[in-house]
Amino acid sequence: MARHVYQATLRWSDMDAYRHVNNVQYLRYLEEARVDMMFTLGQREGAKTLAEGVVIARHEIDYRRPLVWRPEPVRVETWVTEIKAARFQLGYEVLDDDGVYARATSVLVPYDLTETRPRRLNAEERAYLERFLES
Amino acid sequence: MARHVYQATLRWSDMDAYRHVNNVQYLRYLEEARVDMMFTLGQREGAKTLAEGVVIARHEIDYRRPLVWRPEPVRVETWVTEIKAARFQLGYEVLDDDGVYARATSVLVPYDLTETRPRRLNAEERAYLERFLES
Amino acid sequence: MARHVYQATLRWSDMDAYRHVNNVQYLRYLEEARVDMMFTLGQREGAKTLAEGVVIARHEIDYRRPLVWRPEPVRVETWVTEIKAARFQLGYEVLDDDGVYARATSVLVPYDLTETRPRRLNAEERAYLERFLES
Amino acid sequence: MARHVYQATLRWSDMDAYRHVNNVQYLRYLEEARVDMMFTLGQREGAKTLAEGVVIARHEIDYRRPLVWRPEPVRVETWVTEIKAARFQLGYEVLDDDGVYARATSVLVPYDLTETRPRRLNAEERAYLERFLES
Repeated sequence: MARHVYQATLRWSDMDAYRHVNNVQYLRYLEEARVDMMFTLGQREGAKTLAEGVVIARHEIDYRRPLVWRPEPVRVETWVTEIKAARFQLGYEVLDDDGVYARATSVLVPYDLTETRPRRLNAEERAYLERFLES
Repeated sequence: MARHVYQATLRWSDMDAYRHVNNVQYLRYLEEARVDMMFTLGQREGAKTLAEGVVIARHEIDYRRPLVWRPEPVRVETWVTEIKAARFQLGYEVLDDDGVYARATSVLVPYDLTETRPRRLNAEERAYLERFLES
Repeated sequence: MARHVYQATLRWSDMDAYRHVNNVQYLRYLEEARVDMMFTLGQREGAKTLAEGVVIARHEIDYRRPLVWRPEPVRVETWVTEIKAARFQLGYEVLDDDGVYARATSVLVPYDLTETRPRRLNAEERAYLERFLES
Repeated sequence: MARHVYQATLRWSDMDAYRHVNNVQYLRYLEEARVDMMFTLGQREGAKTLAEGVVIARHEIDYRRPLVWRPEPVRVETWVTEIKAARFQLGYEVLDDDGVYARATSVLVPYDLTETRPRRLNAEERAYLERFLES
């Protein structure tokens, strides 16, 4: 029941002509956090198949405060809000000690890249995701 | 009461290692459509101040079909779903003759970049946005 | 002996915090021009194998004038400056009626993605590239 | 006479449809290394004005080995190869313990963003750059 924590490095070029991190780049930070949770950690701790194919079905994101580039990373906390037979939902916060920059959720669908179709979660994946379940 | 239509050019590099357009890049296409509607067309047709600063408060996006790079653009249709004193909401569809790739909404807040704070829509902006209002 | 001409669409987000198109994005425009020349046109006009794998060995780029986002595309002219057994070189100019924004060259190596190793140009590819040869 | 060392984080999306880090993204890593050397470290150690505006006049880059995304950063080593009155040149290597992925050089021009014109290096900037001079 623990959140996954990822330190996301900002790139100077993530800022746009308004001199703030561009809204689209926040979703890049969420992607990096997911990759860390599902590919890097998942592969090491028993949910290898998650790395073989998961597609995004939906994102929702609320922007709370503008973010300006700095050398220090932002923290992306990720947790699981719902697990169904063939989809699951993640919650995220992008934050640092000054507060929260964005809150988001994503719906993900396990995907068989060879058969090019959605598939059900297997027992190993389900057990892995349950470690991060917060309701 | 017409939708704004923007032909978004895909870049080959919008595809990721799965050989589909990366989910985050869809939001880049929405941004290009907004820029065309609010900066390019808005400036020509009487809502110049929209180009001076609008920030994103929220996005929702549903992915319907995978998109693979091709030289032909995708069509982004944009319309206004709600206008309030100090915020408005857009609806979008990313599509071509084969169907819809994504549906999305964004909440936008007019912003005074000099004073660095949200501001109310002015009459000119409101009149411009009403042209695209669909409820 | 004609240059290949590609109209590259700028994205608003190609600008960085200095409010100019970021230097790295110019190379994205070169990539789009190459993709158009070698994948789209190449496939239509008899050099299909070029689309199956070409890797970049080297780039040189000189920046001449700053470029600011605008709805109008920039023109990327591309030509072939040298053809060898297993590599060829392209020249480029990024320009519009106001002048030249950048000049560049790239060295490209045909690559067998299945065997993961460089390969020689075949006769069809060579004939296709010679159409753009300028020395 | 020491090289500047920056650990560049790869993003999963830096890979393209060929499942290698896209050639253009290497220049992003060089940018991050420069930002660290000239903005972050420069500001702390007495060359504040370098952060106020430097433009790129030229890049050369040679790609040596393909790079595949992994959670571990790559090392970007940066040094100064030449200092003139109104421009200087950097050398770079992108590498890890397995070898060198790319070698590059850039020509940079100090720029007065207020006056929008090139300017000469000041004594403080020159002294800072000399610490990294390697000939």
